[in-house]
Amino acid sequence: MTLYKLTYLDAKGLGESIRFILSYLEKEFEDIRLPFEILSQLRKMPEVPYGRVPYLEIDGAVMYQTTAILRFLAIEAGLNGSNNKENLNIDMIAGTVGDFITEIQRYIKAKEPAEKDYIKECLVKEIIPFYMDKFETLIAKEGYLANGKLSWVDMYAVGYFESIPGLVGFELFEKYPSFKALTKKIHSLPGVKDWIQKRPVANI
Amino acid sequence: MTLYKLTYLDAKGLGESIRFILSYLEKEFEDIRLPFEILSQLRKMPEVPYGRVPYLEIDGAVMYQTTAILRFLAIEAGLNGSNNKENLNIDMIAGTVGDFITEIQRYIKAKEPAEKDYIKECLVKEIIPFYMDKFETLIAKEGYLANGKLSWVDMYAVGYFESIPGLVGFELFEKYPSFKALTKKIHSLPGVKDWIQKRPVANI
Repeated sequence: MTLYKLTYLDAKGLGESIRFILSYLEKEFEDIRLPFEILSQLRKMPEVPYGRVPYLEIDGAVMYQTTAILRFLAIEAGLNGSNNKENLNIDMIAGTVGDFITEIQRYIKAKEPAEKDYIKECLVKEIIPFYMDKFETLIAKEGYLANGKLSWVDMYAVGYFESIPGLVGFELFEKYPSFKALTKKIHSLPGVKDWIQKRPVANI
Repeated sequence: MTLYKLTYLDAKGLGESIRFILSYLEKEFEDIRLPFEILSQLRKMPEVPYGRVPYLEIDGAVMYQTTAILRFLAIEAGLNGSNNKENLNIDMIAGTVGDFITEIQRYIKAKEPAEKDYIKECLVKEIIPFYMDKFETLIAKEGYLANGKLSWVDMYAVGYFESIPGLVGFELFEKYPSFKALTKKIHSLPGVKDWIQKRPVANI
């Protein structure tokens, strides 16, 4: 039996989409959750590829980078596009979701209190509404983030965005009903449904 | 004749890899270079997808997100992997290059002088050596960044990394001879060679 071992933080964040897709594939996986205090040490840990989490071991073979892992597992899951144009559409949205995540990570990583306050204000007033309004419009129109059908990018976005309210105190579900509906769709998928019931409670 | 129109800043940065691959494909392209002052306005410009550059128009159809564009153009250029495993290898390195770029962009975007100083010190003392040492080892061993052969991720890295010395004053070529050799290989490719000779001089 193939052994899957996911290493991430005790959070949804970037790891949750990989937990979703593994669950959808009905793979049992070991769910290693490192404490947040370890973040500053990751670059010094040689077993952590390029000092970043999440990473996934499949029978000991290591793969890293969230979207690379998702795109690879999506082959078996049937969650890539059906042709080059559909994959381009998925990749464009995935890159955009990645940019949005980067903006949120800027807040988490900022050190000076004045900088942190400034970034939080930008996030709440400008950046979160900017991206979420566009995603909301897209989902309202097509039901999903790309190609009008389920793909790995929906799991990527829903998994990370679940952490946003806890990170910056910005409510998403009330303001963005189509995003809420997409989250419900992902949570109701075979395999994912069971994961949602048994996953550990994490604040973010 | 298909019309290619690339919109980016007056810089190498994220745009240069797309200029490389279009040149490699022997496509003529319009090379729109926006002034840096426009960066803070991009989110207010409805023609700019998700407020980000670069974006590419092919006969008016817009595609955006650097790695999505590269992966798509790489199909015609034969610069993707030959199988799923090779594509995974390319995607893992591309994500890592993206993380490294994000660290550099944190410096560019920081507002408070104390924060900017702190990030610059981290970049020069820790982050640039951390990533470049690993890339150098990889290139020294395999000649390229993934699968021991040319792929779009080499263009992505070389194109952006050319901007690093001008951005943070960190010399790359002297310290990393294998990276320098990879840069020379990219610059010598058919089509790219001509582009290097005619490209505009940009400080970064």
